[in-house]
Amino acid sequence: MTVTAQDGTDHGAAALEPGATIGILGGGQLGRMLALAAARLGMRCHIYCPDPQSPAFDVAAARTVAAYDDREALTAFAADCDVVTYEFENVPALTVDTLSPLVPARPGRRPLAVCQDRLEEKRLLEGLGIGSAPWRKIDSLDGLRAGVADLGGPCVLKTRRLGYDGKGQARLKSTGDADRAWEAIAGAPAILEAFVPFSREVSVVCARGVAGDFAAYDVTENHHEAGILRVSRVPAGISEAGAAVAVDIARRIAEALGHVGVMAVEMFLLDDDSGERLLVNELAPRVHNSGHWTIEACPASQFEAHIRAIAGWPVPSTARIGDATMTNLIGDEALDWQALAAEPGAALHLYGKHAIRPGRKMGHVTRVRPFGA
Amino acid sequence: MTVTAQDGTDHGAAALEPGATIGILGGGQLGRMLALAAARLGMRCHIYCPDPQSPAFDVAAARTVAAYDDREALTAFAADCDVVTYEFENVPALTVDTLSPLVPARPGRRPLAVCQDRLEEKRLLEGLGIGSAPWRKIDSLDGLRAGVADLGGPCVLKTRRLGYDGKGQARLKSTGDADRAWEAIAGAPAILEAFVPFSREVSVVCARGVAGDFAAYDVTENHHEAGILRVSRVPAGISEAGAAVAVDIARRIAEALGHVGVMAVEMFLLDDDSGERLLVNELAPRVHNSGHWTIEACPASQFEAHIRAIAGWPVPSTARIGDATMTNLIGDEALDWQALAAEPGAALHLYGKHAIRPGRKMGHVTRVRPFGA
Repeated sequence: MTVTAQDGTDHGAAALEPGATIGILGGGQLGRMLALAAARLGMRCHIYCPDPQSPAFDVAAARTVAAYDDREALTAFAADCDVVTYEFENVPALTVDTLSPLVPARPGRRPLAVCQDRLEEKRLLEGLGIGSAPWRKIDSLDGLRAGVADLGGPCVLKTRRLGYDGKGQARLKSTGDADRAWEAIAGAPAILEAFVPFSREVSVVCARGVAGDFAAYDVTENHHEAGILRVSRVPAGISEAGAAVAVDIARRIAEALGHVGVMAVEMFLLDDDSGERLLVNELAPRVHNSGHWTIEACPASQFEAHIRAIAGWPVPSTARIGDATMTNLIGDEALDWQALAAEPGAALHLYGKHAIRPGRKMGHVTRVRPFGA
Repeated sequence: MTVTAQDGTDHGAAALEPGATIGILGGGQLGRMLALAAARLGMRCHIYCPDPQSPAFDVAAARTVAAYDDREALTAFAADCDVVTYEFENVPALTVDTLSPLVPARPGRRPLAVCQDRLEEKRLLEGLGIGSAPWRKIDSLDGLRAGVADLGGPCVLKTRRLGYDGKGQARLKSTGDADRAWEAIAGAPAILEAFVPFSREVSVVCARGVAGDFAAYDVTENHHEAGILRVSRVPAGISEAGAAVAVDIARRIAEALGHVGVMAVEMFLLDDDSGERLLVNELAPRVHNSGHWTIEACPASQFEAHIRAIAGWPVPSTARIGDATMTNLIGDEALDWQALAAEPGAALHLYGKHAIRPGRKMGHVTRVRPFGA
């Protein structure tokens, strides 16, 4: 029996049995960690990625090296898989349209369509009455100048599409920076956001099942450097009430998107005279770097939660067994592996990437400690 | 630079770098979990197994399906690997002899030779002054009758080679059972052991590095049914002093064998008027079912400890983050996966085996709880 969801994706209602094949688009570290989690549950993985040196290939039963618009390869991939998912949100629409009629593709088209476009994200949030930074749609240099004047003070110009790790963004202090910023994003369709004087960045990593069951890991506090996540920490510096609001925001977004699988919602925490306030910064319809600490600190990690959800299993408990700090190993920092391997209690993860490049996420290390220690 | 150890194995002294290839002989669940642990450290795995449906193949970068005495396949395997290890102790001598000149094979020949033969094990223990059940070497039915009379009371006849999970064993109450027992083991060279009135079965899972560094996980209490491990529990019901003795026994054995990697020592705990006493039951020169709980309850599992050790890395911390119970899923019990998946806090592992058979280990579930809870 299959159930057709509102977004047109064919969601098989039955839970996949152990031994089923999970197809994953994208062969980076997220795909690799998804494959490792799937293996723990007795699932078989098939990784699809254009890059023949994809780290995820090394831990999968089957591999397809092909472009994301290769209909023939996609069709063969779908035929080998019981469900298909992805490790990144910028999956081309053509890819999803090719796969969807052949195999359940989860989370499905709507979460992708919304999360691929910052304008759609903003509209979704507005529709749900969920706060985010004040913004303007930008389609021209004149519009940008007007927008900066309108929002006032420092702003961030962000391309609507294909931004990640701080790419496709430009900061502006005033209208005088408009030319430079417009050039920096090559005049792509964009949104302009007012700079928000946040006190912390936090995220909610949550999972939603086929049946609509929902669970969120504890709110994580994130520290970025040069637009790249550097450290995630749990518990976050947020009140209990604030954390409940954050989780509720994530739940409402996941439900509005009909999301199936893991999703991350990055938020700004403002803490001023009027108390705590949360503004959504960005959605990621997938497992997320700020949830890596769940591998050691929870019985079922975000990767396992995603595999369970897309397989039609109930989402797992997201309870923690302790406090945790996750630190990314970026570029050359991965060369410290010997010192990290020698540190008692440090859980070292290296992604098997063939070359170190500046800014490239090469691994991470998680340190778990007793609650409150 | 390489260092030649006393056992003649060529132990490269330098630590392998992330990205190195680990060769694993054997493609069952232990090989699979070793491969998953290696992947976490950025290592690539090559699995060698005669069975084309080996569960470990699904999580490895390279696979060889060939017999263990296929010299050509072994030579090609060695050429692809930076170090070779195994998931089972009954690796034929020919296999090790073919691989050893070509690639470091760890732990190496001596741990295998001793652990493949219960007589050698007994002699090793005697030489170290480590207690085990009273025993006799048995080569004939007459010798068996004499042995039973000599040891008195209930005994266990065990083939010297190729026994596991209670296979190759026969129990005797008296000399009257000798014919049946001798037939049950098909007259294979054997040892006869007096039955030991133990109060508990415990094991020490430990790791020894290339440099001789050593670490043991906390003593585990094991419960068997029909010769198969059913439940492992930590902490074990043993005094602190008893646990220290158990770990010391494991350390002395590992050192005597020049072992590199993870090793398990199964022991009987006798607790009578004269206090606690430990007798070694069996050695396993590899990762062990009674150490599966370390996946969730320690920053580095027994599988990671083994990979680190054979890669020439220091052995990791073996500290626990809580108490744990591991329950094997044997045969049909794996069909309970839906209930287990729905149990909060239960970490479910399924091995991806293609067919359920009675007595076959299909998966396991680990429950971690706070210390003393």
